[in-house]
Amino acid sequence: MPKTSEERRLPRKEYEARVPDLRAALVQMQVDLKAAPFPVLLVIAGEEASGKGEVVNILNAWLDPRGVETFSFHEPTDEERERPAMWRYWRSLPPRGRMGIYAGSWYTEALRDDPRSPRELTDFDHVLRRIAHFERLLSSDGALIVKCWLQLSKEAQRERLRELEDDPRTAWRVSPEDWKSHRDHDRLARLSERLRRATSKPGAPWQVINAADPRRRNLAVGDYLLKRFRTHLAAHNRIPAATKPRRVTSLHLSGLHRLQSLPLNQQLSGEVYEEKRDKWLGRLNHLVRAAAERRRSVVWVFEGWDAAGKGGAIRRLTDAVDARDYRVIPVAKPTDEEKMHHYLWRFWRHVPRAGMVTIYDRSWYGRVLVERIEGFCRENEWRRAFGEISDFERQLTEHGIIVLKFWLQISKEEQLRRFRDRENTQYKNHKINAEDWRNRRQWRAYEAAVGDMLASTGNRTVPWHLVPANNKRFARLQIIKTSCQQIAAALEG
Amino acid sequence: MPKTSEERRLPRKEYEARVPDLRAALVQMQVDLKAAPFPVLLVIAGEEASGKGEVVNILNAWLDPRGVETFSFHEPTDEERERPAMWRYWRSLPPRGRMGIYAGSWYTEALRDDPRSPRELTDFDHVLRRIAHFERLLSSDGALIVKCWLQLSKEAQRERLRELEDDPRTAWRVSPEDWKSHRDHDRLARLSERLRRATSKPGAPWQVINAADPRRRNLAVGDYLLKRFRTHLAAHNRIPAATKPRRVTSLHLSGLHRLQSLPLNQQLSGEVYEEKRDKWLGRLNHLVRAAAERRRSVVWVFEGWDAAGKGGAIRRLTDAVDARDYRVIPVAKPTDEEKMHHYLWRFWRHVPRAGMVTIYDRSWYGRVLVERIEGFCRENEWRRAFGEISDFERQLTEHGIIVLKFWLQISKEEQLRRFRDRENTQYKNHKINAEDWRNRRQWRAYEAAVGDMLASTGNRTVPWHLVPANNKRFARLQIIKTSCQQIAAALEG
Repeated sequence: MPKTSEERRLPRKEYEARVPDLRAALVQMQVDLKAAPFPVLLVIAGEEASGKGEVVNILNAWLDPRGVETFSFHEPTDEERERPAMWRYWRSLPPRGRMGIYAGSWYTEALRDDPRSPRELTDFDHVLRRIAHFERLLSSDGALIVKCWLQLSKEAQRERLRELEDDPRTAWRVSPEDWKSHRDHDRLARLSERLRRATSKPGAPWQVINAADPRRRNLAVGDYLLKRFRTHLAAHNRIPAATKPRRVTSLHLSGLHRLQSLPLNQQLSGEVYEEKRDKWLGRLNHLVRAAAERRRSVVWVFEGWDAAGKGGAIRRLTDAVDARDYRVIPVAKPTDEEKMHHYLWRFWRHVPRAGMVTIYDRSWYGRVLVERIEGFCRENEWRRAFGEISDFERQLTEHGIIVLKFWLQISKEEQLRRFRDRENTQYKNHKINAEDWRNRRQWRAYEAAVGDMLASTGNRTVPWHLVPANNKRFARLQIIKTSCQQIAAALEG
Repeated sequence: MPKTSEERRLPRKEYEARVPDLRAALVQMQVDLKAAPFPVLLVIAGEEASGKGEVVNILNAWLDPRGVETFSFHEPTDEERERPAMWRYWRSLPPRGRMGIYAGSWYTEALRDDPRSPRELTDFDHVLRRIAHFERLLSSDGALIVKCWLQLSKEAQRERLRELEDDPRTAWRVSPEDWKSHRDHDRLARLSERLRRATSKPGAPWQVINAADPRRRNLAVGDYLLKRFRTHLAAHNRIPAATKPRRVTSLHLSGLHRLQSLPLNQQLSGEVYEEKRDKWLGRLNHLVRAAAERRRSVVWVFEGWDAAGKGGAIRRLTDAVDARDYRVIPVAKPTDEEKMHHYLWRFWRHVPRAGMVTIYDRSWYGRVLVERIEGFCRENEWRRAFGEISDFERQLTEHGIIVLKFWLQISKEEQLRRFRDRENTQYKNHKINAEDWRNRRQWRAYEAAVGDMLASTGNRTVPWHLVPANNKRFARLQIIKTSCQQIAAALEG
């Protein structure tokens, strides 16, 4: 068969003449990247013997190793296995201004199982959808995702394997599995096409690169990376900064109505409360331990107005859980490391190990509340967040984690009473500051945002539990009871 | 036997009368802690059935769970086993302003092996020295370390075990092992006394608390924690802030002489260099793979003057290592999360897994260089650091990690030439800024500090390799060669 121009080998001299300029451009790219507000993810995937490892090493030689990190994923560690599948990739993500080269990636794992039966292929498709979602999440946050698929025809693959075997320095790299996969070339090529079709999306397209000639292949990867980077940087500079919206208006009145129609005038005597509380706390203790025995984790999410009683409710809950088994994550301003990442990164960090409990005191919902209202993110960002958050929670529940989320609702008058009480009681003084008063002045804006949150992020698996919290005793008891019911249902289900 | 006043049970009423004040004081402690520049580590250890878990849970109920995290350590995960023993404790340390309660701790692990033979006891003593060092490190950095040992006489232990067994709600907590350890009470008591004697140090003393009466025990732990916190806070407020020293003078002239007497006038032709480099890079590649096969990691540390060529040297090195196996950690200003911890914390974070490579581009030596010179830490802090750093490196090498550290030496004239070159060459522009010029004006101060570093932190296991670096080719080759020799020696040794 006559060779195409792409398969004809590029003479070494021509290659060496081109490399210095490419290297200089790549290093310049790294300089520009340092100041850029996005990370670069470069995924190198492809057929057996297409030279993925070589490409990764060449790129690392060309680049300044100080701004780049290379990842490959072997068997998940036990800490990784105990979390949802994407956790190990979240923890590897480069921060803004830096670059990650993925020698192994989420694709390696998707292909590892070598799906064949219709059922396996359905699972495969599911994994691919999850990957596409992951990449869309990152790319819409600004990440530059560059994916190269190194392709070899069956003939070129055979030639390449022979070449490797013939050279004593590389012979060790060819294993019987490589020949097996070579014999299976056509089926695997169809499988990888299915993979690329399912995951080639705007913002994360696949670039297929002919890998028959290693020199052309190296240049093609470098050129493509550069081209994508330049386009991306130029586009990014045109994005306007986020600004504080003049008004916050409801997208969905249904959520607002649900919030406003919640009766808040419950009464509960101290005596009845204590008796019921102890009964339910005992139950809760039992249920959390039963969940842990089945390696099921529990994630509690608490949101609510300032002074709605989140702290107190959490204290009651934790009375029922062994202190060695839970962590409370108070969510305030992100740290500067957290700011360098996608807004969900800092919550992924704290996803509990199997059988453990994480309690988020405020949470990812800050994206659609304070960030929306204060203009810390752009409108398209918080609008997108509703779906992103639902998907995040779905990943938790699919892994078997029981997710319980509560909104603590108080009236504006009740808040005022509590603020004043905090100001007038010396030991509560530290619990109130100017920001609380500022937030209070934006009550209507928050109400609209909370309503939208309720309408857009609750579903049957992870519903919002609205808790009337003007009466603290009533609120605490309801939280404990609801938690019991939900955990019991999850363990039965 | 008549009971002592400490063993007589405190009536419930008296207990309940005392608890509210203690709780209020503990919560106030947490408020004060938030603003304090140190973390609190509370270790709860003690005999079987002394109620360690109960105490931890009670404390968590008394405290605001949002400022405290409870740790217990089970079997190390595989990620932990692949690092030096103390890595898992370093990663759990609370940041300044927060509190960690250690239900399990480094002591749990030390006792788990139940040492009996003289040889085992020698190992035990070694572990205890390592622990004492760890605690001294933290306490001299300001951490408040509170250690309670819950003690039971043999009689009280029997009584307590019976009591637990008799109550259907707690019977499950008593196992045959507990009775076994009860029969062994006296030997175990001697062992724990040995443990306390070896690790009761200023800054981290043991407080033995009689645990016969649970109520007295709970109050004693709370009171002791409060007392230590108050004393610590008062003492801490008297520590003066760090200031920039007026002059930096050598502690050890030997290091300075070694630095200044290094010949820098080497020559090396491009041809000879390339030939030798490729030969040695091939060897290095082979050696790093051989190390990885034996699960030995390599840590490279690069220090040197600005523009001494650290970046270029690292690039040459990494040419020999598969990109999937190394990480380069560029060390600049600490992030705000890092600032909330001991200065070594941010280096412990990046200690490689078994068989992997970490390259630190600048390192923990910043403590005795820039931090000393700029007054970012106090004199006693950088003076102490020499020993702390040597010990850190010893922990790495004891775990089998091969540590290679290089100082790249150039003359002041050569630095000037390179600075000007960077300023005049467009694509090198980003590599030079005002800070570089500022540092240059402090050449003599740095020289003194580097000299002290060389004199105080090199030893036979982890020596300093001084590299004459006026000639870049010579420097790179020497680094590659020395690395080969050191790795080969480590693999043979």
